[in-house]
Amino acid sequence: MASMLLSRQLTCCLQQNSRLLVFGHRYISQAAAKIDVDFDYDGPLMKTEVPGPRSRVSFQSINAEAVHFFCNYEESRGNYLVDVDGNRMLDLYSQISSIPIGYSHPSLIKLLQQPQNLSTFINRPALGILPPENFTEKLKESLLSVAPKGLSQVITMSCGSCSNENAFKTIFMWYRNKERGHNNVTKEELESCMINQPPGCPDYAMLSFMGGFHGRTLGCLATTHSKAIHKLDIPSLDWPIAPFPRLKYPLEDFVKENQQEEARCLEEVEDLIVKYRKKKKIVAGIIVEPIQSEGGDNHASDDFFRKLRDIARKHGCAFLVDEVQTGGGCTGKFWAHEHWGLDDPADVVTFSKKMMTGGFFHKEEFRPNAPYRIFNTWLGDPSKNLMLAEVIKVIKTEDLLNNATHAGKALLTGLLDLQARYPHLISRVRGRGTFCSFDTPNDATRNKLITIARNKGVVLGGCGDRSIRFRPTLIFKDHHAHLFLNIFSDILANFK
Amino acid sequence: MASMLLSRQLTCCLQQNSRLLVFGHRYISQAAAKIDVDFDYDGPLMKTEVPGPRSRVSFQSINAEAVHFFCNYEESRGNYLVDVDGNRMLDLYSQISSIPIGYSHPSLIKLLQQPQNLSTFINRPALGILPPENFTEKLKESLLSVAPKGLSQVITMSCGSCSNENAFKTIFMWYRNKERGHNNVTKEELESCMINQPPGCPDYAMLSFMGGFHGRTLGCLATTHSKAIHKLDIPSLDWPIAPFPRLKYPLEDFVKENQQEEARCLEEVEDLIVKYRKKKKIVAGIIVEPIQSEGGDNHASDDFFRKLRDIARKHGCAFLVDEVQTGGGCTGKFWAHEHWGLDDPADVVTFSKKMMTGGFFHKEEFRPNAPYRIFNTWLGDPSKNLMLAEVIKVIKTEDLLNNATHAGKALLTGLLDLQARYPHLISRVRGRGTFCSFDTPNDATRNKLITIARNKGVVLGGCGDRSIRFRPTLIFKDHHAHLFLNIFSDILANFK
Repeated sequence: MASMLLSRQLTCCLQQNSRLLVFGHRYISQAAAKIDVDFDYDGPLMKTEVPGPRSRVSFQSINAEAVHFFCNYEESRGNYLVDVDGNRMLDLYSQISSIPIGYSHPSLIKLLQQPQNLSTFINRPALGILPPENFTEKLKESLLSVAPKGLSQVITMSCGSCSNENAFKTIFMWYRNKERGHNNVTKEELESCMINQPPGCPDYAMLSFMGGFHGRTLGCLATTHSKAIHKLDIPSLDWPIAPFPRLKYPLEDFVKENQQEEARCLEEVEDLIVKYRKKKKIVAGIIVEPIQSEGGDNHASDDFFRKLRDIARKHGCAFLVDEVQTGGGCTGKFWAHEHWGLDDPADVVTFSKKMMTGGFFHKEEFRPNAPYRIFNTWLGDPSKNLMLAEVIKVIKTEDLLNNATHAGKALLTGLLDLQARYPHLISRVRGRGTFCSFDTPNDATRNKLITIARNKGVVLGGCGDRSIRFRPTLIFKDHHAHLFLNIFSDILANFK
Repeated sequence: MASMLLSRQLTCCLQQNSRLLVFGHRYISQAAAKIDVDFDYDGPLMKTEVPGPRSRVSFQSINAEAVHFFCNYEESRGNYLVDVDGNRMLDLYSQISSIPIGYSHPSLIKLLQQPQNLSTFINRPALGILPPENFTEKLKESLLSVAPKGLSQVITMSCGSCSNENAFKTIFMWYRNKERGHNNVTKEELESCMINQPPGCPDYAMLSFMGGFHGRTLGCLATTHSKAIHKLDIPSLDWPIAPFPRLKYPLEDFVKENQQEEARCLEEVEDLIVKYRKKKKIVAGIIVEPIQSEGGDNHASDDFFRKLRDIARKHGCAFLVDEVQTGGGCTGKFWAHEHWGLDDPADVVTFSKKMMTGGFFHKEEFRPNAPYRIFNTWLGDPSKNLMLAEVIKVIKTEDLLNNATHAGKALLTGLLDLQARYPHLISRVRGRGTFCSFDTPNDATRNKLITIARNKGVVLGGCGDRSIRFRPTLIFKDHHAHLFLNIFSDILANFK
């Protein structure tokens, strides 16, 4: 039935193509938008302004000021998001970077249709105590098949925040065991922890970076410093916050300045560890994103991260890499931190979003020393893991990591060209794989560009205070980049 | 295909019934185990010890000391959990109280087989910004149709911990807005919150109870005080912790003592609010479970909770009821706190587990005053909401709340009888609906009873330091209670 449905959708789509809006081709597109032979649509198709009349009706029934518009996910396919008014948009934001292989991927439809998979979707177990028989097998097919080098252990969680929270806890327990030097817990520790006091609840901290985003639950939020709206009015912890490098672009023109900037930040990291230790607050771990995403797509050099890893080791702190947004292949490697070429791997790596399930990898030595220490009722969801196994198979068979590198190059080259032509609108073009971004002059211009693009059939996302970030799916290809660049070139040419 | 599979399973089950182990009938069972005509099995069927040989093989491939055994969820149906060795057990723990209408319920199988639902399972949106068209409709069919009186607003989350974390944040923001008395945030607040400091991150607290469990992320963990293993080595917050009443049983013999005990605890709550306020730490909210579950199934009277609600109002604190384990119908009302008969409703009610999705209800006045303040990428999962709508339909059409009251009465009556006969093994029998429990003399006896019961075909769960808790599904009926009581009566008679 559902495959019939899909065929019908495909027919509809082909009929609608004759009505495809034709955009001017001011841009440098080497090739006209190539029509994908598989399940993807071949271009945007706009019928109304967005949000359109049907979205507006739905708005009346919901109190959610953040809603952009209402979607028709049944009709959404590949790189294209369809709204309830029938507008079909090239989606370069992919649900805040969380759709790995496009909407309604045939492999996932097939997976849902297989009777042997039904049970996994309707019988959600308490995974930590009563796992299904095939659980370890599915883990090997999925998460363990893409484990970062040196990180043999994995635990699944329901979302990105829970992943970071539990990664922090894993690090705190590891650190305390290291301090204890034995496994004997004192009576005083057992009693004091029940009332939130040391020594049972020690005065440990995670060091984070200004501009970082690691989630919004209270522990995570103490390491998140991207926007005030995330943190205002919420009590927090006195944990150290280091500056993150603010690089100047183009990188080749500012080699020395950027090296100095990174050295300054690294020095501050070491100073903070020492300073906090003096006031009896121990930095047990350092958390960092390979590219600060919500905070404005802030990059640092591979050398910066290698040196940061060395500092963590030198001071006995765990090194936690948050790959919730960067992980899953969009930078051209499965994990963005694999670009760094670390000699000593990260200690803990967290993930979620494109991975469909939250969770974290860690080194063997970070295993909790007793059961139920890292635990909750669901500990993830085997149905997400089942889908992830399929997604990873598609990534491998369709060579989607190389695709991200290739399509990312097309996108970045085009953006650099637009920057050269419209320097008053576009600056600081940067990116790795398809994980690209640029700055606009200010917040108002950025938001206006996003709105205009949406009405021309392209969904974009903002980050930081004036950046636009690209977070397409892994099946975003060169021709999608050219399609976007053509549309955006027109927008910039006409921008007032 | 899957309905064929189900028919085949049903046939297998009927064939296997001839091999059903016959247990002695020492107990008071009024009726032999009635055979359900629908999808449930009709009794346990044990082939090996648990964990059996196939479970033991799977153990070798996983490092998870908490795992009890490996399960065959495809073969599990109704109230019966089947393990990988073909052992079929009456499940009175239901995945830590998280399976609402039994395993492999035909309504959920049907839901998964409908082509129009496919998209919801494979296209998970960023719900806060791009909801699907039918989202508000599904919310009305599901969560809003069972909203506690006076709580018109609902937000979905991925799990119980995230629900409580975000409920805390909602309360903190509400409190701060109340303190401000206007909507103007100062520059100092905006700047200081970015570095985790007051006034932007105010020194607010949630008051919780000793023995309570509210989750394991850092914010939740500061209100969790059930077991040291949950809290040891994790930094925490100096938030006030009040004693929870320790009632004496049978209740009718200790009316005065229990009233005094509850009065003492309530007095301590007020004292703590005042004491913390004096040291400039403001109690913005009080969190409490209707029945402390992980902490040992500790009950308090309806009167206690009504007075606690009054204290919260008197001191301007929000009143947060954590229904993660008690919610969803098992106490005979959809929400356990509905038994209290509050004049002024709770301010916030959190849920997860049997509700299949996390989230919380709140009063209109607790709505965040700006978008993106309570937000994350997924904000729950519409596929869980779709299943929940179906589950709620089944609860209503099959009158499962009354069933919980009725079956709970059969269970509690039987437990009281066993307590009278085996007072050296069973004490403090208590319960509401099927949410029943009793104490054993000590941890070792409790764990031994659980192991013996498992090998006789009944899955039980422990809580606190020596209690056994009953957390069956909502389709647990009188005859399941009698079946269990017969088996357990034999176990007690032979216990050495």
